[in-house]
Parts: sequence; structure tokens; C-alpha cells
Amino acid sequence: MKAEIITIGTELLLGEQVDTNSVYIAQQLARIGVDLYYKTTVGDNRGRIAEALRLALGRCDVVITTGGLGPTADDVTREAVADVAGRPLVLVPALLTHIESLFQRWGRPMTENNRRQAYVPEGALIIENPVGTAPAFAVDLPQGTIICLPGVPREMKYLMEERVLPYLREKMGGRTQVIKSLILRTCGLGESQVGEQIEDLMQCANPTVGTAAHAGQTDVRITVKADSEEEADRLLEEMAARVRERLGDAIYGTGSETVEEVVVRLLTQAGRRLALLETNTGGALAARLRSVPQAEQVLALAEVLADAETVAARFGGGEEAPWSSPSAAVRAAQELLARSGADLALALVGSMEPGGDPYTARQGVTQVALATPQDVAWQTHHFGGTGELTQRWVGTRALDQVRRYLLSVLRSQGLPKPA
Amino acid sequence: MKAEIITIGTELLLGEQVDTNSVYIAQQLARIGVDLYYKTTVGDNRGRIAEALRLALGRCDVVITTGGLGPTADDVTREAVADVAGRPLVLVPALLTHIESLFQRWGRPMTENNRRQAYVPEGALIIENPVGTAPAFAVDLPQGTIICLPGVPREMKYLMEERVLPYLREKMGGRTQVIKSLILRTCGLGESQVGEQIEDLMQCANPTVGTAAHAGQTDVRITVKADSEEEADRLLEEMAARVRERLGDAIYGTGSETVEEVVVRLLTQAGRRLALLETNTGGALAARLRSVPQAEQVLALAEVLADAETVAARFGGGEEAPWSSPSAAVRAAQELLARSGADLALALVGSMEPGGDPYTARQGVTQVALATPQDVAWQTHHFGGTGELTQRWVGTRALDQVRRYLLSVLRSQGLPKPA
Repeated sequence: MKAEIITIGTELLLGEQVDTNSVYIAQQLARIGVDLYYKTTVGDNRGRIAEALRLALGRCDVVITTGGLGPTADDVTREAVADVAGRPLVLVPALLTHIESLFQRWGRPMTENNRRQAYVPEGALIIENPVGTAPAFAVDLPQGTIICLPGVPREMKYLMEERVLPYLREKMGGRTQVIKSLILRTCGLGESQVGEQIEDLMQCANPTVGTAAHAGQTDVRITVKADSEEEADRLLEEMAARVRERLGDAIYGTGSETVEEVVVRLLTQAGRRLALLETNTGGALAARLRSVPQAEQVLALAEVLADAETVAARFGGGEEAPWSSPSAAVRAAQELLARSGADLALALVGSMEPGGDPYTARQGVTQVALATPQDVAWQTHHFGGTGELTQRWVGTRALDQVRRYLLSVLRSQGLPKPA
Repeated sequence: MKAEIITIGTELLLGEQVDTNSVYIAQQLARIGVDLYYKTTVGDNRGRIAEALRLALGRCDVVITTGGLGPTADDVTREAVADVAGRPLVLVPALLTHIESLFQRWGRPMTENNRRQAYVPEGALIIENPVGTAPAFAVDLPQGTIICLPGVPREMKYLMEERVLPYLREKMGGRTQVIKSLILRTCGLGESQVGEQIEDLMQCANPTVGTAAHAGQTDVRITVKADSEEEADRLLEEMAARVRERLGDAIYGTGSETVEEVVVRLLTQAGRRLALLETNTGGALAARLRSVPQAEQVLALAEVLADAETVAARFGGGEEAPWSSPSAAVRAAQELLARSGADLALALVGSMEPGGDPYTARQGVTQVALATPQDVAWQTHHFGGTGELTQRWVGTRALDQVRRYLLSVLRSQGLPKPA
């Protein structure tokens, strides 16, 4: 079953409101395996709504609309559906009674235009709405089915779950499926590198594999359609195993996990405490770590120094620009380890162009050193500056360095692989 | 100029991501008076993207797409545009140089699929993207113009503002207009009552007038298209004046103002302090008031009692159910006024069905009394219970009662009307 959602409301086209209704409906459709092919948004215009409906019926089996069912003159969804169906609007006495009883209860006058809400296209299936005055309804046409829901999120959600999903399940004759996704989150590789590793998998039809990049990380999304939750999970896991085989430790987690959450979890599992020294990231990295509830127990110390020169002056290193070689970062990390009593110490020493970001032409560098009682390792990142995106990218790379070290520690201890 | 936005990405159809890109683009188009007629969302599917593009070109002059310009195999926007344009994809050396220089700077290997990002449909206008690797481009066709932007919000926003708006302005030959909206917020009237008062205004073409209801309030949105900001503001104000004439004090504010903000402002202006006693709203009303920064200075006391019976037992009144008559609420308000030393005291005494809401069949009632040194006034609301929606509705009605009282006080003092 192919579906299209049509959200109706001029406010959506003026950018005054974010459309969350269609997100919810999309999630619900995925739950029963209905393929959502298109979403369309159209204003409160009878002709354009009708046109969008005709088009949707031409390319999908089920069309779900939200909005335009209120009592006022700008609510014209029911008229547009009647136009498309070629049927008149008819008064449904039961709907009128429902609306009248509500107004009577509230002790409020019922206006003439409230009566409009009791009209639906002839032959429509009434979807009773106990949580509002706007009625919902479905119209079965030779080309497909139109289901009209109110735009008020509370009412739409109630009707979608309680009425529409059961209706669609029945329509599918018990042959409902499920569409599920699994997201593998990677860091340390660019989107193109990730894509190259799994290019053949990205050609598969079911599950499908796609990538999305954001702020220095790349997500791999696996989506499957199956007859049951169990089969879906099995197919997802099979494909995830193939992706893991290719990308290995670049995958740091699944679902909505963040790198900082994983690092805090690994620190806890390994019984290690981290000390941190930042320059150009200006405290952003410490803030990310502290956003994780358990961070307090594993973050021994977090310092921010004004700039790389201050680091070099205090700890030595960096004959020329202190970020041009790792020596200042290395010495800072070693000193921090000794002074803090932590088990590992991370120092970020970077150039300080204000607003510098990974895409600007100016050459920025950030040196990241990680000191442990055994040794010190460093990485050089060829972007620096104090721009938000740099802080994010460098921070993620630095966390990734800690994460990979902790994985090696845990493996050497024979602990089960935690990802 | 008529426009359509096409957002591209399977994740949007799975309900995994809220589409905020199109909200931003819609706002920007309104700034220069481009009429946005449709928004369409389509997955990462070359054929369906091409179909959506053809359709959009058939009904609009300009089509703006976001997404699908990344380096990986599931990014197929450029191929789909080439299909629709009937032109091959060609390598643009300058784009390749830009991408190569970024990878060189980062010291990262450039993969073969990064080269894909340097291809655009033959004859396309390159929209230089200094803040990312994905190039943007525009293709002029006899049917209309396609503008392709990356899906990364940061890049999309930058390019929209810095490149696309100037391009569209030039395309419109300096004849840019502006689309502006003004929202008048009402409370105390239902949407149908508001609609009835302004039904003729809702038939106007420019400005347009529409209504939207949410949680016991009704907004009136006036939208205008004009040659300049000044003209737009003038036309908006003219129509607003007509709406105000009809709806009077039912309009409590404009823009994003809340009733509680207005009440706190009026209390401050009138130099009055409010005491508050709640039952079935369970503290929700106090919380709404306290969410306003200046509330501390004007909220003398806020109490919550367990239920209406407790109110009756303490203050008397309510022979039968204490919410069936206003007497318990009235006495509670009077006692509260005396005890708190405030200038006005508001008491809400309602029935307590858990989850009761204004639409359920059960009969609920909430009595609201407002005591001042001069007198006490009460209102009976025919919905009760402890449901979130009831708490919202009753709270708004109670705030409205305070608001209208304060308006009369301020007017009697000859102060300028504050709304």
C-alpha cells in the first residue's frame, strides 16, 4: 500500500509553523508497513487542495490529509474532497448532535458555521472524533481512499492511533507489514569514505542503506520492510553486521547515542577518569561531556586556557606557532595527567581565528594529545579556529581518540565489546 | 513569481526527522514576496525526484530543492535534475578544485565519490558554496528554474540568504514584493464565534484573513502581499483595525504574546498584586504565570488545594458538590484577598475527574471567582476535571477574567489602552 500525506494550511507555507503532524503520521504508517511515497503541503485554497488530492490519488492508494476541517470560512478541506469525489456535501445528523451536545455542555452559543462541521461528502465513512468538534472521515473512490483528519495535533494523533491504523490494517486484509530503521553512527570518517566502504550495500532494495552527514559525523541508516517485527529486526541485524564488518570501530553507537555518551559509558566501564584541557574549543568539549548525567564521576578535571600561546608559555613546546607541532599539546597532556591524578589526560591546542571553520580558506590546525600512564599519542587536525563547527568537529575527533583508546583497554582486559 | 519547495530524503518520509529546512526557505521567500504554493517531500529515489520536479515545473515558476547533493550513492538529486533538463552531467573543474583543496587542507584522502559532487547538469549556473563540499546550482529551463541546495541546514541557510535571495531578486527585475503576517490573539471566544464576526473579512484577497484554534484560544492571522515593508505594515494595520472593531477586547495581544504575559504586564501597569488559589488545575495556572519573568513582583501568593471539597470545608459554600455553585469559589477568593493582602484574588474550584477534558461525555464544572476590594465576580465554566486540556482551557478563561478586569481598571484611570 502506497500512501501520501497532504498537510493543509496557509501558515505552513508562510513558514510560521513547523509541520510535526506529518512526522507523526509517517511514523505510524511505518509501524504497519505502509510505504509513504510523498508528502505535500498546500494552503487553504479549495482548488489547489482538490488538485493535490487528484494528483495524490493518481500515484498512491491512500491519501491522508490533516487540517482544514475547522468551522471557519478558510477551512475548505471537506469542500475540496467533495469536488474530487464528485459528490455533494451532506449533513450527518449524528455529527450535528455531537457538536450540539458539546456546545450545550459548555453553555456556549453554537454559531451557524459550527453546523458546517457536520457536513461530509456523501457516502463518506464517518470517523468519530470524541476529542474535538472537527469530524474526521474517509472517502473510498475507485482511484483510492482519502482519509481526512483534523490539524489539531492532539486530535489528529488520537484519531490516527485509535481509528485510522485499525482501519488501514483491516483494509490491508491482515497483510500489514512493518517498516523499521536502525541507525549506525560513525565518527572519524567522512561521508564519502563511509559511502565508499558500503557502496554495494547502498544498492540493496530491502533493507535499504543510506548515509547522512552532520557536523563531522556520518550516520548509516538501514531501513527494512518485513512481515513482522521479529523478521524486521533479524534483517536489520544481518545488514548491520555487514556494515559493521566494513566500518569496524568507526561505528561508535546506534540509535540516538552521542559520542560523548559513549565515551562516558566506556570510561565508567573501564574504571578510568579523564582530565581535559582545551584552548580553541573554549569549553565546548567539557560542556558536551558534562551534558551526560554520569560525567561527574569520570571527569576528573576540565580546564580552558585562553589560547595556544598560553599553553606553550606554561608547559613549553611550540617553537614557532604552538599548534604547528604537537609538542605543546603533548607536554600539556603529560603535565595534566600528573597534576590531576586522572587515568588519562586530553589536551587540545589549536589556532584561534575567530569564527574559523573547516571550510574557510584560512589555514587552521588543532593538535590533540592523549596522555596515559603508559604513553602519549597525538593527532593533528587540519582545521582550527573558534567557530562553532570547528569546535564540534575537533571535539568529536578528540572524543573519538579517547573512545578508541578505551576500546583497546577494555579489549585487553577481555571485557565484552561494549558497542 | 510562484514557487515550490521540494525536500529530498527518505528519512523525512520515515518520520525520523522534522523538516525545518522548508520552514526557513518559506520565511525567506515571503521576505521578497515570492508566493509559495506547494511543498513536496520525496525520498532518495531518482525517478520520483524527477517526477516531482516535472510536476513542480508544471505549476510553479521556481522550484527550490534541498537534499540529495552529498557524495554517496543515495544522493541522486543532480541525476534527477539532469534527467528532467534532458542534459548530461558535466564535470566542473572549479568545483573539483574547491573540493580537492578542502581535502588537502584537512589532510584527508579524497575518495572517488567526492568527485561526483563536482558534476552538475550541463549549462547549470554554479552557486558557489564556501561553507561545505556540496555545490549548489540553478538550472534555467523553458518551463521554469530549478535551484538545488544542500540539505545540511547550516549550508542551506547560508546559500539561501547569500546567493539565492539576491538571484531571485534580480530575476524578478527589482519588482520584489514582501509577504507579511500579523497575528491577533484572542481568548474567551470559540473559533466559530470569532469566524462569524469576521466572516466577510475572511473573503478578502489581499490581505487574507484566517483563523486557527488551539487549546481554548483562537488566532486571527492577517497576511498581506505588498510592494514595500511600509505598505505591508499599513495594509496589515488597516485590516487589524477592522478585526479589532469586530472582536474588541477578545483580542488580548499580537504576535507570540501569551495571555499570562499580558496579565503580568497589566498587573504591573496597574500596580496590582494577584493572589491565586487552584484546585483541579493543580498548580498549572501558577506555573504559567511564573513562566513570565516579571511574575514574582505581581504574584502575591499561589496556593493549590487538594480538591473542591477541601475548599468547601475550609471556607464554606457548596451545599451539594462545591463546584455546582459559585459560593465556595467566591468565599475562597474573598478570604484569600483578606489573608494575602493582595489587590485581587482569584479562586478556581472545579470537579476533579482524572483526565477529564472539555470533550469527554462526563459533566465537569469549574467555578472561577475574582475578588477585589470593591466586589467579587464569578464565571462558571462547563468543563472540569484534571486533564491537561481542561487545565489549559480553564486557566486561560480565568486569566482572561483577570485581564478584562485590569483593562477596566486601567481605562478608569485614564491610562492609554495597553494592547
